[in-house]
Amino acid sequence: MGTNDHRAFHALHHADRPLVLPNAWDYASAAALAAAGFAAIGTTSLGVAAAHGLPDAEGWARAETLALTRRLGRLPCLVTVDVEAGFSDDPAEVADLAAELTAAGAVGINLEDGRPGGTLADPARQAELISAVKTRAPGLFVNARVDAHWLAAEDSPPLGGTLARAERYVAAGADGIFVPGLADDEHIGALVAAVAAPVNILYLPRRHTLRRLTDLGVRRVSTGSLLFRAAVHAAVTVAQAIRDDQPVPGEIPGYAEIQRLVAS
Amino acid sequence: MGTNDHRAFHALHHADRPLVLPNAWDYASAAALAAAGFAAIGTTSLGVAAAHGLPDAEGWARAETLALTRRLGRLPCLVTVDVEAGFSDDPAEVADLAAELTAAGAVGINLEDGRPGGTLADPARQAELISAVKTRAPGLFVNARVDAHWLAAEDSPPLGGTLARAERYVAAGADGIFVPGLADDEHIGALVAAVAAPVNILYLPRRHTLRRLTDLGVRRVSTGSLLFRAAVHAAVTVAQAIRDDQPVPGEIPGYAEIQRLVAS
Repeated sequence: MGTNDHRAFHALHHADRPLVLPNAWDYASAAALAAAGFAAIGTTSLGVAAAHGLPDAEGWARAETLALTRRLGRLPCLVTVDVEAGFSDDPAEVADLAAELTAAGAVGINLEDGRPGGTLADPARQAELISAVKTRAPGLFVNARVDAHWLAAEDSPPLGGTLARAERYVAAGADGIFVPGLADDEHIGALVAAVAAPVNILYLPRRHTLRRLTDLGVRRVSTGSLLFRAAVHAAVTVAQAIRDDQPVPGEIPGYAEIQRLVAS
Repeated sequence: MGTNDHRAFHALHHADRPLVLPNAWDYASAAALAAAGFAAIGTTSLGVAAAHGLPDAEGWARAETLALTRRLGRLPCLVTVDVEAGFSDDPAEVADLAAELTAAGAVGINLEDGRPGGTLADPARQAELISAVKTRAPGLFVNARVDAHWLAAEDSPPLGGTLARAERYVAAGADGIFVPGLADDEHIGALVAAVAAPVNILYLPRRHTLRRLTDLGVRRVSTGSLLFRAAVHAAVTVAQAIRDDQPVPGEIPGYAEIQRLVAS
């Protein structure tokens, strides 16, 4: 991926419609999404970690994330990579990762301020990580994730802290702001109004519609681990149907279709 | 996995009901199937290869297959591994693989006589592979796959050649015979009657029922790549629904449920 791809990915955040970004977890899921016409795809850290038997958000899946990114480099689509919190607290190490991902063909990363154990990073330290990444890999679209809402166990926290973090991360060079777990229309609208960068919202089934998120000014709608969870669920459902001697849904693609995804 | 696990897996082929064996492709799919109550699971070589961007049945996924087997060793279920044609034509190398898989916790393998490019192995050479594996790993359940029907482009080939191969492989030490692509009740019944080992049939949606396969004397019903294909299909379907602003199915498990699969 060269400079043109980086420019193209930035531009997708300023188009007529929001960027709908589906998240893959392995080569096959990414290839199938590319074949379905998605010009850009993300990865899901839950999916990548769980596929390898690792917990998400604990900083354990650096090697697996990088290996996947290298495999995805040959796909005919733009790829942005969920790197959890960067797999390190050291800005130089996170910048190294960003450089490696760029070399592997990635055009963007998601970098979260949640930390292992479910705590939140000090925003000044998080800004240092973002700044280090942007210095080393200036073309890389850094989607800075604010985890205040994602990590909140019950009630949504006040929006003020989230806005302050977002402002700080944009000042440090973040190209976009991602607040997973933000569900309320009023909060989403306030975030969009306050942040001087494209806002990314995690699509929540039965809560969001693309139309409404578009109207609220959201520039990127991503799926997080939803597709991965749907995939695991589908596999178990089919297995249970066979065990219970019930009919299996008939729309499943054939062997040759999946082999072609890899060959192409 | 110790001797008791090997005995338990053999015994599942001689129980009141056929062994329904779902096939996983990564840790998460395997963990979800184990959590759904399957006492034994297989792997799908298409799934493992495609997840890594490799074609199936070309002998390229040895390292990925072994790495997955090592991850699955901690699951509370019996695991049998699809090793394509053994990733080598050298009996000593295939026996080495069998020993490594046994050490990683596998209780069985699927070893196919199809070869890269869609040809069939000489049955005498295939019998040598089987014999070498059983000599090195006597407890490992070797499910010898006869690919005459699987590789047939159109019409089903005569059953005689399949029966001759099955007989030869059982004589070489195979613990079971697997004939994917065999769909016809009459052929399945003839295979069961002729073969002095448990017969495994690949479940074909809209063609087979578990009841009918049971009545025909089939001892193992596996899903091949079906669950993997269903998973990829589900992921793309959900992504397309979001892009088209259509409702997403509501039964998808949540983030915490998937994290628990890995933690347990």
